[in-house]
Amino acid sequence: MRYATRMDCLEDKSLLSVMEIQETDDMILFTGGFPSPETYPLEEITDAFIKTLEREGKAALSYCSTSGHKPLREVIRHRMKRIFDLDYNLDEVIITSGSQQGLDMSAMLFINKGDVVLFETPSYLGAVSALRAHEAQLVAIPTDRQGLELNALKQALDQYGDKVKMIYVNPDFQNPTGRSWSEQRRIEFMEMISQYDVAVLEDAAYSELAYDNKPQKPLSYYDKKGQVVYIGTFSKTFCPGLRVAWLCARGEMMQKYLVLKNAADLSSSAIAQMQMAYYLTHYDLDAHIAKISRLYKHRRDVMAKAIKENFPEEIQFVLPAGGLFIWLELPVDYDTRKLLPIAMENKVAFVPGTAFYPNASRSNEMRLNFSNMKDEDLVKGIRILANVTKRFMKER
Amino acid sequence: MRYATRMDCLEDKSLLSVMEIQETDDMILFTGGFPSPETYPLEEITDAFIKTLEREGKAALSYCSTSGHKPLREVIRHRMKRIFDLDYNLDEVIITSGSQQGLDMSAMLFINKGDVVLFETPSYLGAVSALRAHEAQLVAIPTDRQGLELNALKQALDQYGDKVKMIYVNPDFQNPTGRSWSEQRRIEFMEMISQYDVAVLEDAAYSELAYDNKPQKPLSYYDKKGQVVYIGTFSKTFCPGLRVAWLCARGEMMQKYLVLKNAADLSSSAIAQMQMAYYLTHYDLDAHIAKISRLYKHRRDVMAKAIKENFPEEIQFVLPAGGLFIWLELPVDYDTRKLLPIAMENKVAFVPGTAFYPNASRSNEMRLNFSNMKDEDLVKGIRILANVTKRFMKER
Repeated sequence: MRYATRMDCLEDKSLLSVMEIQETDDMILFTGGFPSPETYPLEEITDAFIKTLEREGKAALSYCSTSGHKPLREVIRHRMKRIFDLDYNLDEVIITSGSQQGLDMSAMLFINKGDVVLFETPSYLGAVSALRAHEAQLVAIPTDRQGLELNALKQALDQYGDKVKMIYVNPDFQNPTGRSWSEQRRIEFMEMISQYDVAVLEDAAYSELAYDNKPQKPLSYYDKKGQVVYIGTFSKTFCPGLRVAWLCARGEMMQKYLVLKNAADLSSSAIAQMQMAYYLTHYDLDAHIAKISRLYKHRRDVMAKAIKENFPEEIQFVLPAGGLFIWLELPVDYDTRKLLPIAMENKVAFVPGTAFYPNASRSNEMRLNFSNMKDEDLVKGIRILANVTKRFMKER
Repeated sequence: MRYATRMDCLEDKSLLSVMEIQETDDMILFTGGFPSPETYPLEEITDAFIKTLEREGKAALSYCSTSGHKPLREVIRHRMKRIFDLDYNLDEVIITSGSQQGLDMSAMLFINKGDVVLFETPSYLGAVSALRAHEAQLVAIPTDRQGLELNALKQALDQYGDKVKMIYVNPDFQNPTGRSWSEQRRIEFMEMISQYDVAVLEDAAYSELAYDNKPQKPLSYYDKKGQVVYIGTFSKTFCPGLRVAWLCARGEMMQKYLVLKNAADLSSSAIAQMQMAYYLTHYDLDAHIAKISRLYKHRRDVMAKAIKENFPEEIQFVLPAGGLFIWLELPVDYDTRKLLPIAMENKVAFVPGTAFYPNASRSNEMRLNFSNMKDEDLVKGIRILANVTKRFMKER
């Protein structure tokens, strides 16, 4: 069989294999990128489902409109206004099947084979897959503790010129480092890119999971020219199983997204959308998020303490102020891809840092998820991982 | 903003606007392509949901594996064996978010910009969107009452040579004509294409909706070289709202589909899949299909009778032996796109035939859905449409 050339760009199956592990294995998994299942409001979701079928009847089991269930889009719109001071009209908000679909559609909307995407690095490997699947050339833009490095960004914008179609960023408690951009950096970034004809894909998956301060204003808030595509999701704040996420874009751009959504899967599940709308209007998602934030903050602290107590001093990390991950840095000459199989023999798994670099330029880091586990497993897993890491570092 | 060139290929928004009509309007809609909502087994689906949450708990609300929920894939596999005598291993069956996603992923797997897809014509316009979104060049292959015209197929295969990557077909009660390929034609087709290095996309959306005879053997049954990708769905036999469909492919090809599925949306909804698996093991889908088949057969007959009684004699159709549509043919010099706005003023809508021709080569037909309406509305709608059509034909 003769396949499309895009398949040559998709060799890295790291995320795929991580997903496949989860269903089958019994080890301590620091690999996840999701909220803790024990927090899922099972009773409320069941109630929302039953009420939805009672109220909406058969409509809930039919096709939905391509743009998505209107009342859900309304609630999301008002919620974004209230929490982030974002102003979107109803027809500037559509529902997607997980935010991954928003990434995929964005790649489709902007990318011809070989076009350049400037990619916040390290960053979400699902975005790497989505962009590579459309044969984007990913150019890594490094970050410092304030956010994307603007000098590097400007250099790349000027170097690649018209080939640059999109900038992918994940400004809040980003995956994998847990870091957030400063307000100043956001403002400067938006000022800089407003000089260029380029779209910004703002992945806001973790934005509401703020443990130490209030959520910050999204890039979209500072967007005067309609360059920002904002992608939000309930997968991290509620549960990923319903696959309900949303995408916001301005004017004619949204019309084009609709055409692509239709080509991709006609529409997202009607019942899942109606259920979510019911939950949002009859229950209190804010209270739910406050509750899980307390829990995750506690787990973050437990993991951080265990790391400090068990890992050698030269292994570094920055305590994240939100999100689901701690990003652990080994000395530069160690490759965590080689550590992973040894850790897995000892029943602990993590995601090697390389997966988050589009060009695998660094390999001494690992991503550890802390949201998904009881204290004793967190501590046990970190102890095992620390021991394995120490041996690994000695033996090399 | 500078968009990808694919957007130039997606100008035809016919399907999109059809989807957008459905949520808002109160007219008699012959536009649908779905089962009748009154047949959805609401109680059973509610039961399946509650039992699933009781049994599977939080796992039902988490991410699923990329390939899909195993027990569901098992049931589907056995079902395909029982009904169609198809042999697929478990790892040759994955779950997709509606069969539209299977089409989209298939385009991604095989199509580079400008590659040729030989396209059964007329045929499903959602497949046109999915293929155009990846800049396939669609070459229409005509059909006769036995199926795809093999002379035209061979000519196109030889003319376009290596550029041909895929053949899209819809052999059972196809959308929009309701026709099925004969057994002989299936065998000859598979024999012919086995001489070429080309994939066949077999869209089996309507295969189980057989009203007059038993379902036929799919093309995949005759496939000795692993060329056929088989796409099935519960959207037409059960309900579309859960967005649960499946895709079967052989060996290494399936590995590549998994990579694409992961890039597209990580995984389909876990709870929807588990619910579907529960329904399939605890209820009787065969009995459900038998029941809806009796109902749709009756409605087909009501619509056919009303057409014969109300339309002028020169307007032709073939009574379909299954599926959801009657395909109505006006004399060749009339354009049903011009009839549509007049019909809609009179509160009746249909899909103009042009939408099903990738190159809009014919415009004198219309697709009428009969599954979705009570007898009196069927008759009333056909009467209005017949009157409008008569006036339209006279006035021209």
